Amino acid sequence: MEIGFIGLGHMGFPMVANLLANGYAVRVYDTSDAAVAKAVEHGAIVAQSLIDLAQSADAIITMLPTPAVVRSVLCVPGGVIANAKQNALIIDCSTSDPQTAVEVEALGAVAGKIVLDAPVSGGVQGAKAGTLTFMVGGSKDGFLLAKSILSAMGKNIVHCGAAGSGQAAKLCNNLLLGVSTVAVSESMCLGASLGLEPEVLAQIINTSSGRCWVSELYNPYPGVVKDAPASNNFAGGFACDLMIKDLSLALDAAHGTRQPLPMTSVSKQLFQLLSHQGHGDKDISAIVEMFKK
Amino acid sequence: MEIGFIGLGHMGFPMVANLLANGYAVRVYDTSDAAVAKAVEHGAIVAQSLIDLAQSADAIITMLPTPAVVRSVLCVPGGVIANAKQNALIIDCSTSDPQTAVEVEALGAVAGKIVLDAPVSGGVQGAKAGTLTFMVGGSKDGFLLAKSILSAMGKNIVHCGAAGSGQAAKLCNNLLLGVSTVAVSESMCLGASLGLEPEVLAQIINTSSGRCWVSELYNPYPGVVKDAPASNNFAGGFACDLMIKDLSLALDAAHGTRQPLPMTSVSKQLFQLLSHQGHGDKDISAIVEMFKK
Amino acid sequence: MEIGFIGLGHMGFPMVANLLANGYAVRVYDTSDAAVAKAVEHGAIVAQSLIDLAQSADAIITMLPTPAVVRSVLCVPGGVIANAKQNALIIDCSTSDPQTAVEVEALGAVAGKIVLDAPVSGGVQGAKAGTLTFMVGGSKDGFLLAKSILSAMGKNIVHCGAAGSGQAAKLCNNLLLGVSTVAVSESMCLGASLGLEPEVLAQIINTSSGRCWVSELYNPYPGVVKDAPASNNFAGGFACDLMIKDLSLALDAAHGTRQPLPMTSVSKQLFQLLSHQGHGDKDISAIVEMFKK
Amino acid sequence: MEIGFIGLGHMGFPMVANLLANGYAVRVYDTSDAAVAKAVEHGAIVAQSLIDLAQSADAIITMLPTPAVVRSVLCVPGGVIANAKQNALIIDCSTSDPQTAVEVEALGAVAGKIVLDAPVSGGVQGAKAGTLTFMVGGSKDGFLLAKSILSAMGKNIVHCGAAGSGQAAKLCNNLLLGVSTVAVSESMCLGASLGLEPEVLAQIINTSSGRCWVSELYNPYPGVVKDAPASNNFAGGFACDLMIKDLSLALDAAHGTRQPLPMTSVSKQLFQLLSHQGHGDKDISAIVEMFKK
Repeated sequence: MEIGFIGLGHMGFPMVANLLANGYAVRVYDTSDAAVAKAVEHGAIVAQSLIDLAQSADAIITMLPTPAVVRSVLCVPGGVIANAKQNALIIDCSTSDPQTAVEVEALGAVAGKIVLDAPVSGGVQGAKAGTLTFMVGGSKDGFLLAKSILSAMGKNIVHCGAAGSGQAAKLCNNLLLGVSTVAVSESMCLGASLGLEPEVLAQIINTSSGRCWVSELYNPYPGVVKDAPASNNFAGGFACDLMIKDLSLALDAAHGTRQPLPMTSVSKQLFQLLSHQGHGDKDISAIVEMFKK
Repeated sequence: MEIGFIGLGHMGFPMVANLLANGYAVRVYDTSDAAVAKAVEHGAIVAQSLIDLAQSADAIITMLPTPAVVRSVLCVPGGVIANAKQNALIIDCSTSDPQTAVEVEALGAVAGKIVLDAPVSGGVQGAKAGTLTFMVGGSKDGFLLAKSILSAMGKNIVHCGAAGSGQAAKLCNNLLLGVSTVAVSESMCLGASLGLEPEVLAQIINTSSGRCWVSELYNPYPGVVKDAPASNNFAGGFACDLMIKDLSLALDAAHGTRQPLPMTSVSKQLFQLLSHQGHGDKDISAIVEMFKK
Repeated sequence: MEIGFIGLGHMGFPMVANLLANGYAVRVYDTSDAAVAKAVEHGAIVAQSLIDLAQSADAIITMLPTPAVVRSVLCVPGGVIANAKQNALIIDCSTSDPQTAVEVEALGAVAGKIVLDAPVSGGVQGAKAGTLTFMVGGSKDGFLLAKSILSAMGKNIVHCGAAGSGQAAKLCNNLLLGVSTVAVSESMCLGASLGLEPEVLAQIINTSSGRCWVSELYNPYPGVVKDAPASNNFAGGFACDLMIKDLSLALDAAHGTRQPLPMTSVSKQLFQLLSHQGHGDKDISAIVEMFKK
Repeated sequence: MEIGFIGLGHMGFPMVANLLANGYAVRVYDTSDAAVAKAVEHGAIVAQSLIDLAQSADAIITMLPTPAVVRSVLCVPGGVIANAKQNALIIDCSTSDPQTAVEVEALGAVAGKIVLDAPVSGGVQGAKAGTLTFMVGGSKDGFLLAKSILSAMGKNIVHCGAAGSGQAAKLCNNLLLGVSTVAVSESMCLGASLGLEPEVLAQIINTSSGRCWVSELYNPYPGVVKDAPASNNFAGGFACDLMIKDLSLALDAAHGTRQPLPMTSVSKQLFQLLSHQGHGDKDISAIVEMFKK
């Protein structure tokens, strides 16, 4: 079985490496020759073009930066959906938006292709370790077909529901991540200003009703979690500007369903202030610097 | 060893019951005769007055509704601190504020009494089960003296630091609880509006970076956690108006240390809107009703 | 000189009436036959189609509900821009967004047509009275050509700058209107809760540093300004859902320039909460109901 | 008629100068000898003590920094209220809070003294020019007695209602000033980021529904209003930290009446962030620096 893989960025490359390590033939495409060359070194086949890739693959995976790029690769006349084999499985792992996912999958259905949205969580580390979570939207049959392929790259493959559900679940999770990061920063800084030792406070929170993934594993107060970005000068991790993108996608989706999201909205604005001050490429935990003495 | 216990409300009464069950002699005081009578049925001794209680107890525990009541019971001339035995241990389990705790403990020190602040988490259920968490502020020596007594009522007894640290830790935890409750409500309602099944979404969040105590054990979306207040018409649990009180104490403490708390502040205002609409006595998870279709 | 007018809604119809009253020949188009018939009664000529209108008019005015409709009318192959006379003046009076305006005007320039963005303020009353403000973006030459036409419908015709500037100015003004409406509501309700007479408070604000257009002419507290929507059960005026649209356009524009807008963002969310409670068609001043006892 | 004046700060001194210029005998008290000496140069009489002042004055004016200082000067046993002449008129011009004003005036009534709250707006410039606005709370009779005295220092003397109403009106006005300052900053910076000339945008806003005192006379965008603090490096004017104090008093008053104030609350937090970054002594218009490119 041959897999076509489009998008060899920070996430895409280690995902391809894991597919190769699991015995799949992988034909790759990227606008960067260097990225392609690196994948070839690991055993990938070069696609001459998107059309070449589309026509020869049994399953196609995309890992692209924005909904607009997803549409331009998959949906244009003469694009990947149009050229893919009949009944080909197309899995879009990009973080996109539910509306785009619904439209792409409808277009696929008309063309006789099975399209799924399957955004990931787990970051670059999870991609390297093959421990990503995939949140999959689309038909149950499609999901069952995709599961074994995705298992080569992740350990938690969840069917969220119909087309767009994977993107919806991702946005719902990430808005919580965004709000939690600000809230834990506020809590830790208030505690420190009142004389509490940050380590002691974190320990109390982590055994109480305020505990969360951020307070436990990604605490934004420097020094509390040794291998978190906050203890490494906010390097690596999840860039503030990417969080702004995800929160914006969540707010746009909410606008579409007329859903109020006041906390999400404030957290986006705080990250925007941080980015405005020149820290958009730092990890999201750098928001703690807005509150810390 | 005799313990004096002041304040036999929803929390105080089961705490007394656990002290009695662990073999302590407990002399009780409350402004409600009915509350006193009920404690006596369980084996408590009636205090004739606060002075009577203060003069005969080896250790005194207070569980009172506001910082102002704490001051009026403990600090006034002729009050409990003035009348307590030399070197008596006075443990204030009320949720108060760090500044009040610091002042009460300084007053105690001058009078030769050991005062600790030891607010709890775990709610009425934890009080009944004897599984409360105590966040203790005050001297290390005082903490060691208090630990065995508190162990009769809780299972997690943490020394947070100097006087006021217990209150500070409680406020820092509870602001996270408040923000999380709103944020999980926003996330769950956005997901539902986009067609996700609430149970599926909760499961995804709870294995991802958005997970928190609220999403796991206290999910505000009705039906997701069977024994949570949200699945019981928002009855029981932690009343919205009490959360407003705790968030206000946190914001006041932050005002004192000139600490910005934007998310905390917005969450207080949202609970205030909910209370303004007549739902101040419902559980905090009722905030989900502001967002749910 | 013949003017083609596309879009005969609440705003468009009285604008056409004023053009006719000032002696212009006006050819009209709308998807509603009733709207067209009403304009004809006032002396307008019926356009057989958009193409008919585009080919016969010397100047074309559009008054359409969304940026997407503007694009579909003006920009599609075979649309109004493509069919308009060489050097025709096309004035888009719709509230759109700066990016759309820039793109439409660039497309017009390529086709040899002069396009301006000229959104209005003043509402239906201003449209009827011919006292609208037009905020015009585009070339200075285009502005000078448009000025006499627009003067038939308004009294304040301002050149804001290059293409898109009219839309930008409109959004910047309307976000202030949105925030002010909420803020005056908070202020008036706080005052009332503290025992102030609303009329007295409004009078004090209106001679102090808190005064604004909303407090003076559009006070959201019922009874303070006799002919404001708030004194008429929040009927008429500027619908909450339209304000949500304008605030969203402002937030989207800000997202594009990476501009933080925290207050704007919170005001949008509060109007969204109001709409969510079923009041989206009421005047924006109905936000006062969220705060009023 | 002799007036006792307590508090000779930036506001108090020019107020005394205007009383003297209008022919009043003024006995002054301040903890700063230098401040007293300066007033004496202008013709004031030195009070030997607060008691001396209280016993000899027919009317007493206080201009003090916080509610706590007001209480300590007026309300303590042996304080100014206790020592003032029977039926003396005591006018508190400090910015305090409604609750303090109610309590002080009740205490005065018991002692047979007429107390009014009469906070001002107009700043140091208004104090020098004798053009302050006085917002007066207390009995109608007291107001009529005070009016001629206050007219020596201001031009707009408004009776707001019963005791505390002056403070309430001041807080309601100042929260609008705080919110407007942030909102105009957002609007101006969004406009600038979209290519609008700040002067042009301000002009459009000032003739549209977004206009307010801040946009017209105190525009936070540097250069737009030539003599505003924003055009003078944010020096002078109304210090950010004082605005934080006023917004806190408003939020505390709202907490007392269970009034939600979401926008006010967010504006306080944004000023707190500004202060946290080291700009607490700059004029409130410095908030524009958080948004400006």
